[in-house]
Formats: sequence, structure tokens, C-alpha cells
Amino acid sequence: MVTKIDHIGVAVKNLEESLKYYQETLGLELHGVEIVEEQKVKVAFLPIGDTEIELLESTDAEGPIAKYIDMKGEGVQHIAYRVDDIEKAIADMLSRGVKMIDEKSRYGAGGAKIAFCHPKSTNGVLVELCQRD
Amino acid sequence: MVTKIDHIGVAVKNLEESLKYYQETLGLELHGVEIVEEQKVKVAFLPIGDTEIELLESTDAEGPIAKYIDMKGEGVQHIAYRVDDIEKAIADMLSRGVKMIDEKSRYGAGGAKIAFCHPKSTNGVLVELCQRD
Repeated sequence: MVTKIDHIGVAVKNLEESLKYYQETLGLELHGVEIVEEQKVKVAFLPIGDTEIELLESTDAEGPIAKYIDMKGEGVQHIAYRVDDIEKAIADMLSRGVKMIDEKSRYGAGGAKIAFCHPKSTNGVLVELCQRD
Repeated sequence: MVTKIDHIGVAVKNLEESLKYYQETLGLELHGVEIVEEQKVKVAFLPIGDTEIELLESTDAEGPIAKYIDMKGEGVQHIAYRVDDIEKAIADMLSRGVKMIDEKSRYGAGGAKIAFCHPKSTNGVLVELCQRD
């Protein structure tokens, strides 16, 4: 169903400061920063192996990342799995009783088509399905 | 410094139940289950792409995974980065001011040499360094 880990989404308070750690200490390369207005988030992309770390800083105190940090602190906020056909993947999830946050795909960072599953259906992990063309 | 994501460690309450989701819904393949006595944990390995999901169920109410779930709930407990030379990686981390939980490597699941960094030094993410021969 899923083909690889598309990315690991990490909620951070301060993108600049976190980038120092990921670039200078871990030695990852920064492949760009993008603001996703709809999600009130600034995203930094750091490829590693066949996947990517996405650092997420909220651009708004009421955004989902700000709320996540208030509740759980900084850390891994979601895991995104790559799928070939997101509409089929959503239908498969629903047919297996997974509750979806997004029953229709929408556009996320990097122009990907994405849909989030509800963490109550996925053992506490916020799971994103992600199709890239 | 790090070459890929070696694995993503996910704390779960019930391994059997979580495996149903990972195998039947996400379609991942189970490549074995191992008990790591020292960490009081039962680990299931599910490869995906060039990395792996490791599901972690505590074998003891006082184990680190049980404590993690008590505090934060089920979810991603750590990210393990593959390194070529773990002793050099530990020395590098220390030289860059990263606080290490393990200043010497020890053996983890699958016979890997591992060392944990302190999450206070790594933006809230529990980071494992992992060397496999």
C-alpha cells in the first residue's frame, strides 16, 4: 500500500536554531524553505537517504504546529508515507476502518497531494499519506 | 555525519494490535520480533524503503517505553540515524556540545551498536546513533 517513508515531520519552536543542529551537527543539507499558508507553517526540507526530514515552525500561535508544541513539546509530529494513488489510498484506509482527518486529498508542502489519518486510528502516530507526481 | 534514517522507533501499548495496522492496513512486512532484555522491550521490525519501522512494546511497567507512554502516550519515541563509526560519531557529538545519554556505545536490537543523544540537545527528538556491520 505504502511504498516508502516520504518524510518525517518534526515540530520545532525556532527553525533557524534547529537548522543549526540538523546542518552542522548531523551534517544534513538544506534543500529549501517554504511557507504553507493554509497550515500556518514554515517548512524546511532536509533530504536523508530515500526520505526527508521536514522541520515545521508555526507562523501563527493558533496554528496546528503551535498547538502541538503547547501540548506535547517539540518532537516528531507526523510520519508521511508515500503512496502511488492517494484517492485509492484514502478509500483503502476508510474501508479498513481508519478514521481520516482528510477524506479528500489536498495540497501540502512541495506541491504534494496529501491526506492525514486520525491518530486515534493509527496507534497515536499522526500519519500523512503523500502522493508526488 | 549521518548516512540515512536507520529506523523510526514507535512506542506502542500492544504489539499484536499495532502489527495488525502496520501489516494489514499499511501493507508492511514483518521481518522478525526480538526481546531486548536490557531495555525491557519487545521490538518488531518492519522494513520500508531504505529504512525500518521498529514497534516497541514494554515488557515491564518500569521500562523506558512504559514510562514514555505514561508521559506522552503512544507515538514516535525515537529516530535512529545510521553512522559508519559510532565511537567517532559520539566524539563528534560531544565536541559540538550535544549531551549524550550514552557516552560509550552499547548493543541494541538486531545486534547494532547504538548510543542515545539527550533530547534536550536535539530539539526534543530522542536521537539514536546506530552502526551496523
